[in-house]
Amino acid sequence: MKNIAILGSTGSIGTQALEVIAANPTLFCAKVLTAQSNVELLVQQALIFNPSVVVIGDERKYQELKKALENTTIEVKAGAEALCEVVLLPELEIVLTALVGFAGLKPTIAAIKAGKHIALANKETLVVAGELITNLAKQHNISILPVDSEHSAIFQCLIGELDAIEKIYLTASGGPFRGKNIEFLSEVTKHQALKHPNWVMGAKITIDSASLMNKGLEVIEAKWLFNLDVEQIDVIVHPQSIVHSIVQFQDGSMKAQMGLPDMKLPIQYALAYPNRLKNDFKRFDFLDYPSLTFEQADTKTFRNLALAFEALKKAGNMPCIVNAANEVVVAEFLKEQIGFLQMSEVIETCMAKLDFIKNPSLEDYFESDKQTRIFAKELVTNI
Amino acid sequence: MKNIAILGSTGSIGTQALEVIAANPTLFCAKVLTAQSNVELLVQQALIFNPSVVVIGDERKYQELKKALENTTIEVKAGAEALCEVVLLPELEIVLTALVGFAGLKPTIAAIKAGKHIALANKETLVVAGELITNLAKQHNISILPVDSEHSAIFQCLIGELDAIEKIYLTASGGPFRGKNIEFLSEVTKHQALKHPNWVMGAKITIDSASLMNKGLEVIEAKWLFNLDVEQIDVIVHPQSIVHSIVQFQDGSMKAQMGLPDMKLPIQYALAYPNRLKNDFKRFDFLDYPSLTFEQADTKTFRNLALAFEALKKAGNMPCIVNAANEVVVAEFLKEQIGFLQMSEVIETCMAKLDFIKNPSLEDYFESDKQTRIFAKELVTNI
Repeated sequence: MKNIAILGSTGSIGTQALEVIAANPTLFCAKVLTAQSNVELLVQQALIFNPSVVVIGDERKYQELKKALENTTIEVKAGAEALCEVVLLPELEIVLTALVGFAGLKPTIAAIKAGKHIALANKETLVVAGELITNLAKQHNISILPVDSEHSAIFQCLIGELDAIEKIYLTASGGPFRGKNIEFLSEVTKHQALKHPNWVMGAKITIDSASLMNKGLEVIEAKWLFNLDVEQIDVIVHPQSIVHSIVQFQDGSMKAQMGLPDMKLPIQYALAYPNRLKNDFKRFDFLDYPSLTFEQADTKTFRNLALAFEALKKAGNMPCIVNAANEVVVAEFLKEQIGFLQMSEVIETCMAKLDFIKNPSLEDYFESDKQTRIFAKELVTNI
Repeated sequence: MKNIAILGSTGSIGTQALEVIAANPTLFCAKVLTAQSNVELLVQQALIFNPSVVVIGDERKYQELKKALENTTIEVKAGAEALCEVVLLPELEIVLTALVGFAGLKPTIAAIKAGKHIALANKETLVVAGELITNLAKQHNISILPVDSEHSAIFQCLIGELDAIEKIYLTASGGPFRGKNIEFLSEVTKHQALKHPNWVMGAKITIDSASLMNKGLEVIEAKWLFNLDVEQIDVIVHPQSIVHSIVQFQDGSMKAQMGLPDMKLPIQYALAYPNRLKNDFKRFDFLDYPSLTFEQADTKTFRNLALAFEALKKAGNMPCIVNAANEVVVAEFLKEQIGFLQMSEVIETCMAKLDFIKNPSLEDYFESDKQTRIFAKELVTNI
């Protein structure tokens, strides 16, 4: 029995993780559930899964949660610091980090220091502080098991392989605006951007997918997960989202992991690793997909992907700046405060204007994140 | 340093294996080279690679070979029995069985009994006597490393995996006559059949590819290599020959091995296993193949594939009968004695008429092979 903490249990990944846990009650137990603000769903989940502790991020909602669970033995906590406490629970084996953005960094560090394996759905943690996190993981001898479908694909392709990766191809669906030009993008609305062709996901990652920033963040994540040079990472647009990513080994042989786009599979793989569990997920049928197509990513129109590569090359706190600026612009785009193309403009200005730190400490990351958010918001206000 | 015997060194696989060995002189050494009849090339190879022994299958060519190598220390042998002797050489680690047809069975058995790992390019050995061979391999604790690109693909996808295969997809190019109908096939010539769209191979396997018998034999080979039920094996036509085969695991996740169609890669993989060697083979580029397509195999028009599945279901000596009948009809087709569609007819009649043995001994296989050849030749004569 693996005891699991789900940080972000009411989100898209969190709810699907609970489906996987519910389907395998003799293998998995949800000991910790946390949500940012969705008390109602958190209460429902808590009553079904009976965790030891629940945490609500938004402290204003503590009383509501406390009251709803008053007839249970479930401990109730609130606030960002509580996330760093609950991951220390001795019986936990795996912490699934399914919360959104920079907020995942602190609890992930706490969990690693407590010797918990990380099922990583919060890519921003590795984007911001990849070197620090991967060093810490080595030091504490824990595994970082990727939940992103692309990184799970590469992880699966690497199982049992002894020799060096020559390169990897991260596949990208291209999002809802694949093939569109600058003129089109200048007019798109948040409703258009929220309609992903293949994947059902949370709002932030769906916008990131439309802008290709998601792929940019994944490039940085892959660098750290698989210890690659930037030249070893390529992105290929594959609109059907069936081939989830590809590894090319030093002999030229390539291995791809494939399947229908269903996040439950990589979630289950990360939780059950090194085993593969039987399930009734729908199977892929080649006859439903007679053609799998591949094309170059258009980084001229979708600037974010080029910016992410640039940040990775620059290294230091540059990916942290990109991530913070991106979190701000996506939130502002969802509030309809800025246009689709202005997201890249703000990020690029942040990259040019904020202080570059070559070897940042953890504190530097927090400071960079903070400064970038202030500056990005100013830029948005002045648009 | 791995010492290698190449049975069939002058054929397509043999010559490419020698290229791999020549490119890695500190890792591999060709200790034994054998050919059926091509003395000229065997002599050239012997003078370059300086093996301990060479064997010519056709005993009438012994003197010619002996004379050509008289100024060397290379031992010269002739005849089928010599193949079973040379694989016993104590310093050998791997025997690459790259000879064609049923003739591979005896030396493969001898090599396994002598504790040599088998790099298997002679699929007929497993087709005829898969159960016997795989049991023998277990008993002598040796590996059978597939060289067929499809089986190498599956083998590579299985590395490091702990759990059960749900099913495999063997990819098939469809050969030069993909999409053609019975009327077209009734008229095709050997020259048309010898033009494979993707792979450069020997004559026998090229005809087998055109008739889909090659895929049928591969289905039977896969059953034994990967311990599968017939229901777990599917064939999917993939005209580009880039995806070499696919494994679907019990969680529904699929892994595919991909690359340009180049037999040197699976040959090198089998010889270097478990390592992957750096090389300068041309790399696959997605932009050269913007679309990878998949379609159902047409087993109504290409009867051989259905016959092979039927033989595998029937089991016993039935695959042996199919293989022997196929060897006869391919030879006769290459001599322009029968038409393309008549190949399937003869095989089907052999399956119906020859004695079925449920649990054949090794001797039974030899007898079945012999009887089938006699009967198939009679059928051809009476066409």
